[in-house]
Amino acid sequence: MRATAELQVVPIGSGVSVREEISRVVELLADHAFIIQTHASGTNIEGELEDILDAVRSVHEALHDSGTVRIVSYLKLETRTDKTPTLAGKQL
Amino acid sequence: MRATAELQVVPIGSGVSVREEISRVVELLADHAFIIQTHASGTNIEGELEDILDAVRSVHEALHDSGTVRIVSYLKLETRTDKTPTLAGKQL
Amino acid sequence: MRATAELQVVPIGSGVSVREEISRVVELLADHAFIIQTHASGTNIEGELEDILDAVRSVHEALHDSGTVRIVSYLKLETRTDKTPTLAGKQL
Amino acid sequence: MRATAELQVVPIGSGVSVREEISRVVELLADHAFIIQTHASGTNIEGELEDILDAVRSVHEALHDSGTVRIVSYLKLETRTDKTPTLAGKQL
Repeated sequence: MRATAELQVVPIGSGVSVREEISRVVELLADHAFIIQTHASGTNIEGELEDILDAVRSVHEALHDSGTVRIVSYLKLETRTDKTPTLAGKQL
Repeated sequence: MRATAELQVVPIGSGVSVREEISRVVELLADHAFIIQTHASGTNIEGELEDILDAVRSVHEALHDSGTVRIVSYLKLETRTDKTPTLAGKQL
Repeated sequence: MRATAELQVVPIGSGVSVREEISRVVELLADHAFIIQTHASGTNIEGELEDILDAVRSVHEALHDSGTVRIVSYLKLETRTDKTPTLAGKQL
Repeated sequence: MRATAELQVVPIGSGVSVREEISRVVELLADHAFIIQTHASGTNIEGELEDILDAVRSVHEALHDSGTVRIVSYLKLETRTDKTPTLAGKQL
């Protein structure tokens, strides 16, 4: 099932700047078969629901492996059965 | 890896009352090996990261199977490596 | 105090398509002295904290005045004292 | 206009434990004429829309005044015109 999503990852306790971790998140997402659009509050993702959820898991694991102690992520996830959800279709 | 989460599921276009769908979501979550706490803005969940993400997928699929056309869900997901994250530990 | 934000407005019970309401939200935000960036999961906003919060109130009121019965909005709000927060500064 | 809300405040760069800041947030919210319910992922709030938004501003300002450099807050806000929204009414 296709889905669109927005993922924002917030490392806690890594310092005031989290740019390095966020760049890593986007790199990890870019390794998947997703359409992604980064913006100031997160990364929008279009792909298979199962792959998106799996990528979220990988992101948590990869950041922890690199030393980030605590991570909160915020995922908005949308699916619909009347048509295929796309990022392009959600632009005004 | 253990995680704590909050899941809020919002059916779009199902009418102003979404109580039936939300009850279904909680039933589905209760079928897993989670600690869950329902509250006015969602359901807090403690469990394995992988199981939580899998449950989110199941919830979308089950609601669509029951006729809900469009679903947006909001997931807050927290993991940490300095101690095991628990819902109890996040209460003030 | 300057702030950056993301606002996503979800009308409940207005039908499966919510494009009309979302266009209205963006028009209302564009009437303020904000820098705004629309994207597939909401609208990013840069402005005065107080103005942003006031705009959120106006959006709820305006949509209700136009007949939307139930509205859930999701606001991410960021402020910092080490430098002025900007949308441009949050782009990778 | 009455509203229900959920507020989660995340201090960035204050260390891995944010318990002190979160306790402060709940104290600040308790000073208002709100019904509040704390839970593991935030604080649910019932009150006037305008007061809730004003409290969010106060929370950002108060934490900054106490030395927190960077704050991201997550607000879910709900209003409806068919009946008065209450936290009690949103419990299953």
